[in-house]
Amino acid sequence: MLTLDKVYHAGYVLKDVIRKTDVIKAPNINPEADVYLKTENLQITGSFKVRGSYYKISQLTEEEKSHGVIACSAGNHAQGVALAATKNGIKSIICLPDGAPISKVEATKNYGAEVCLVEGVYDDAYKKALSLRDEKGYTFIHPFNDESVIAGQGTIGLELFDQIPDLDAVVVPIGGGGLISGVAFTMKKLNPNIKIYGVQSQGAPSMATSIKNGEITRLDGVYTIADGIAVKEPGDLTYELCREYVDEIVTVSDDEISAAILALIEQQKLIAEGAGAVSVAAVMFNKVPIKNKKVACLVSGGNIDVTILSRVIKRGLMMSHRSCQLTLELVDKPGQLMNVSRIIAENGGNVTSVHHERSNEGSDVNGCYLRINLETRNGEHIEEIKKALTDFGFKIL
Amino acid sequence: MLTLDKVYHAGYVLKDVIRKTDVIKAPNINPEADVYLKTENLQITGSFKVRGSYYKISQLTEEEKSHGVIACSAGNHAQGVALAATKNGIKSIICLPDGAPISKVEATKNYGAEVCLVEGVYDDAYKKALSLRDEKGYTFIHPFNDESVIAGQGTIGLELFDQIPDLDAVVVPIGGGGLISGVAFTMKKLNPNIKIYGVQSQGAPSMATSIKNGEITRLDGVYTIADGIAVKEPGDLTYELCREYVDEIVTVSDDEISAAILALIEQQKLIAEGAGAVSVAAVMFNKVPIKNKKVACLVSGGNIDVTILSRVIKRGLMMSHRSCQLTLELVDKPGQLMNVSRIIAENGGNVTSVHHERSNEGSDVNGCYLRINLETRNGEHIEEIKKALTDFGFKIL
Repeated sequence: MLTLDKVYHAGYVLKDVIRKTDVIKAPNINPEADVYLKTENLQITGSFKVRGSYYKISQLTEEEKSHGVIACSAGNHAQGVALAATKNGIKSIICLPDGAPISKVEATKNYGAEVCLVEGVYDDAYKKALSLRDEKGYTFIHPFNDESVIAGQGTIGLELFDQIPDLDAVVVPIGGGGLISGVAFTMKKLNPNIKIYGVQSQGAPSMATSIKNGEITRLDGVYTIADGIAVKEPGDLTYELCREYVDEIVTVSDDEISAAILALIEQQKLIAEGAGAVSVAAVMFNKVPIKNKKVACLVSGGNIDVTILSRVIKRGLMMSHRSCQLTLELVDKPGQLMNVSRIIAENGGNVTSVHHERSNEGSDVNGCYLRINLETRNGEHIEEIKKALTDFGFKIL
Repeated sequence: MLTLDKVYHAGYVLKDVIRKTDVIKAPNINPEADVYLKTENLQITGSFKVRGSYYKISQLTEEEKSHGVIACSAGNHAQGVALAATKNGIKSIICLPDGAPISKVEATKNYGAEVCLVEGVYDDAYKKALSLRDEKGYTFIHPFNDESVIAGQGTIGLELFDQIPDLDAVVVPIGGGGLISGVAFTMKKLNPNIKIYGVQSQGAPSMATSIKNGEITRLDGVYTIADGIAVKEPGDLTYELCREYVDEIVTVSDDEISAAILALIEQQKLIAEGAGAVSVAAVMFNKVPIKNKKVACLVSGGNIDVTILSRVIKRGLMMSHRSCQLTLELVDKPGQLMNVSRIIAENGGNVTSVHHERSNEGSDVNGCYLRINLETRNGEHIEEIKKALTDFGFKIL
């Protein structure tokens, strides 16, 4: 049974291993609340996961340690287990689906794990891990449905109370539910009046659905940019803990998650992964009742692939009108491109790419298309540029 | 005269106003050294500047305070002065060149300043600020060449000693020299054995040049992505303090700065602006003698425009071979695009854009060009894709 003693013990074990991550005020995420960020994206390995896996591994018997541990994950859990095992001086094997990004495979190896690439998807890697466990006697480290793992994550709750004693509410991402189970259990035991809100992605609402259905429910599929919380089914331990200690579970869309990632970059100078930003998205978009409250958003991790980050920024810039794409129909005569360029320059737009093509289907035989990407200041600025172009006689499609 | 007492006093005044920013270990920036980051990018206003301007403003007489303060800056100094004045309950006017980014103007207003947009460039805004000072009796807050401002920045040195008592060296960005003057003075007074290294951008080496020439030297022009340290001429106070307390000044290129920004994102989950990343660039690229030393890089700020960030990431991805652009010459017959697409897909490349054009000059009259942007894993992966395409018979330009 999970006890507060166990969480305190985990805190003691983890004291010199993990970072007590900073709490940072975020005044502009939601001006109607007093918002703080618990920055587990700045934790070693870039995610909170190392807390649970380290504590779990530290509690194994010498016999178990001598055989080593195995886990299955393409993400933060893999890196947490690898680092924790290495620091405890024991062997770790991580099963990954063979399509896993090279960067994650490399990171896992760098933390000292032996990587076992398994043909297929996550479920295949999971099966392989279990069969290797049975064959070789490794201990399987579950990413969330384990009391010691949950106790390890609960240490975040202890730190939060120390850092902000008069907190009204905590907003926590939910994948399998290990993080929120530990945090909610710990904080409710210490202060039954505190509110704990869980956040899932709209594309992977497994815990929300399970709680609503009153039974553990497996989703057919999950689809979200928050890959770290794309879990099809909660565990039985985490399901029971969420039912008892979590006040409400809400969901956020991929667009809201992208906006939160961009807001964290611009306002707070922090990189969060999708899963790490859902708590911030929930507060930004008023999904949880935190008006006039002192609230902490748990930013659970920052391991986002930089190519995805680049796309999120691009989308965020478009959405906030700081870039736009215009397509013009031109009459095919000399000087047209020059005029367009001049008008845009005069109005302070910054051209980033031009695509100019003659005689598309559907346009006049003398016509041609010009597609321009621009950096702009805001929506008003875009309208100014459009107006200047149409006033000159250009047709914007 | 600057004294340690004054820096301690600044520390006392700033205690409840600014954040004691965290020091975070950065194990992969340079594996040969024990590297820590002092995260002033996570300071309120996103930069260390608020320390100096707050302390300066707090030391004004009641008479001076009643008239208000004026400053000239399009960047971090503007926001620091605005916030500091507002918190001290006094009026602030910030002169900005009228081409300043809307985002900076808005941020400055949001911190409570009155913004005065001046036609022209920085020097015009500066002149305007001085003439308004003379006319209205405002106190001009210099961004760096001021003893109280320097004492305020020196408080970072006090914090660093508290956070890492056995530090061997500190690496500090230099623009006008206020930050490094405060930090170097403070730390050398407390520990004469500590090494202080300054870093400038290759495109704006005003302090490096001045020290080398043995006299304050004004650069004709500055050109760098690190706009926060693009200063043409050091101050007389900062020049003297650097001469006395700084061990060495090195420079880094824009490419090195971009690589450092990307490394901070990927490894540390932190956003730094160009000026804030030069210290990290110097350590990454072994510009300073820190082998086997315990060294702190001062990450001075994080206020980077997100459109510029997006370009830095794009460049960084190209440089680290995680994206590439291929141009192919095709024979203009059906099925060519399909074959290219198939080969790329089979080799695990992810196409992000395609530009297909017929009959360019210089190519065969039957030929056409295909320009493809791809997401790739690494340099090896790019070579595999190229080889598969040429093996099939395509010509890569």
